[in-house]
Amino acid sequence: MMNHQWVLVARPEGLPKISDFAWREEPAPATGEGQVLVRSILLSLDPAMRGWMSRDTYVPAVPLETVMRGGAIGVVEASNHPGFAVGDQVQGMLGWQEYFLSDGKGLAKLPALPIPLAARFGLLGHIGFTAYFGLLELGQPKDGETLVVSAAAGAVGSLVGQIGKIKGCRVVGIAGSDEKCEWLTKELGFDAAINYRTENLHKALKAHCPKGVDIYFENVGGKTLETVLNHMNDFSRIPVCGMIAGYNQTEPEAGPGNLFQIIVHRIKMQGFIVTDFLPRAAEAVPEIIAWHAAGRLKYRLDVTDGLANAPAAFLKLFDGSNLGKVVVQVSAEN
Amino acid sequence: MMNHQWVLVARPEGLPKISDFAWREEPAPATGEGQVLVRSILLSLDPAMRGWMSRDTYVPAVPLETVMRGGAIGVVEASNHPGFAVGDQVQGMLGWQEYFLSDGKGLAKLPALPIPLAARFGLLGHIGFTAYFGLLELGQPKDGETLVVSAAAGAVGSLVGQIGKIKGCRVVGIAGSDEKCEWLTKELGFDAAINYRTENLHKALKAHCPKGVDIYFENVGGKTLETVLNHMNDFSRIPVCGMIAGYNQTEPEAGPGNLFQIIVHRIKMQGFIVTDFLPRAAEAVPEIIAWHAAGRLKYRLDVTDGLANAPAAFLKLFDGSNLGKVVVQVSAEN
Repeated sequence: MMNHQWVLVARPEGLPKISDFAWREEPAPATGEGQVLVRSILLSLDPAMRGWMSRDTYVPAVPLETVMRGGAIGVVEASNHPGFAVGDQVQGMLGWQEYFLSDGKGLAKLPALPIPLAARFGLLGHIGFTAYFGLLELGQPKDGETLVVSAAAGAVGSLVGQIGKIKGCRVVGIAGSDEKCEWLTKELGFDAAINYRTENLHKALKAHCPKGVDIYFENVGGKTLETVLNHMNDFSRIPVCGMIAGYNQTEPEAGPGNLFQIIVHRIKMQGFIVTDFLPRAAEAVPEIIAWHAAGRLKYRLDVTDGLANAPAAFLKLFDGSNLGKVVVQVSAEN
Repeated sequence: MMNHQWVLVARPEGLPKISDFAWREEPAPATGEGQVLVRSILLSLDPAMRGWMSRDTYVPAVPLETVMRGGAIGVVEASNHPGFAVGDQVQGMLGWQEYFLSDGKGLAKLPALPIPLAARFGLLGHIGFTAYFGLLELGQPKDGETLVVSAAAGAVGSLVGQIGKIKGCRVVGIAGSDEKCEWLTKELGFDAAINYRTENLHKALKAHCPKGVDIYFENVGGKTLETVLNHMNDFSRIPVCGMIAGYNQTEPEAGPGNLFQIIVHRIKMQGFIVTDFLPRAAEAVPEIIAWHAAGRLKYRLDVTDGLANAPAAFLKLFDGSNLGKVVVQVSAEN
């Protein structure tokens, strides 16, 4: 049995190239005492991985010549560990590879839930909890407030907007195509969506946020942040989830020249990492599942078949060609 | 009896010029029914006034051809108002003028306190409450944490650092001269002070903040913010009080290129305006006075004699030549 892997062989300069990764094949490892062998089923690909490739941040950079880091869902194929049985579905940092050998640490058995496997990434996991805690804890949405979300058609952004609607907000999304904008307003119930590639963001925000912006859920950074800052209300909040605009820049882009708005409008701008909230996941799960069951919280996956295509699928996140949460189907669920 | 005034006659471009103001003389107004005539004693000059001269922010811009706005302490010279008697000491937005006619709104009688008049600006009022609530509410200092303060020898900054020491923090100030730095460390008990004009800020922060920075009390913005951001700890706080580096810029300077640190370190950056906290002033006054009486909270005034010199005194705030809180002695206390 062979294990295919994507190994990081170079620190990308700017947009990653396929040649920054090497496709390796080696025998799947033997399962030693106390170990579990997991076959990967669904690999999550996320913008944050771009940072992991280049530098130490809230996690160390992925060492060169090692398997690229990544969260995935898999199934136990062999176990010499009392906590795991063959056939158990598990989640963990399995990496960009087909088989993962674990001592059980950091590997979580998936609790039984009335949702398909794909929803573990589409609704729950790091995606769902990022949206849930980022918006509710840092954003503190209140009925009648206006919420603006950037990268609104992305995995996190689309959930954030829908949770905002559930909480009674006027929700305006910023996305990169008419197709995405239509999905946000027609399918997900956003009040408005702005195509930043074709519209003037400042004018569009003025039109769609007549009472200003109370919460800006930040996924993008750069010029988008600068423009939205000029629309923020007094005592507004900016949960900072991501700043994808800068992830592939080789030189740091200058920040917004209008940070003084933070004082004028007493803005609270706060960064977060989903792992800080994982101990509280049990608060979120029942609510998210109930919202989903009621048709109020939808998700969409952008599935690429086969681990061999993982780098290409990853790059979709940066040209915006993905529609929904990007995952790789590494192997069949059953 | 004549009333001298400084009238704003032009919106300053860059650093204000004396010619942006006009010196006017008019008869002191008659005190009508329900009115109070106040003689100004001490006029406070503050960096925030620079914004008021140019644009609407958290308060409207000062209209051209009107008396420049400013907070002052005065004494009631004549009263047809039941709430005020001749000889009462009062505080309010008296403006850059010698006499102020009021209907009593926004005019506060100074409560009896065991402090000299100058301490109403040096320790209390907008200066003291800015330092007290900005640090304690937004900064949430904890014993053993590291606090960095910019414009540390300024009116607010010098109090912030001392309150930080009272709360058990390691306190590092950033100031613009060796004389100021010496005052901070020798007189006020700061653990270290950095002369940003002669030292490399990054290296100095590294040396003086070996455990990183938990609170950065922001008075300056610009490059200083960018440099300090690279030293912030996980879950650190940045109360944003002022950004004086940008106040005289004719073109907005680009912001920090490393705002991504807000995510990496889960930083909370929050702006505030002291007026939001004025309803809670009574919490602060006894504590501030007790700290002062115990010798743990000192202040220094930079007094300019005569209203005629107000514009020149104001400009000291921007070349850093002031030593302590800048005030104008408009008339004698007694």
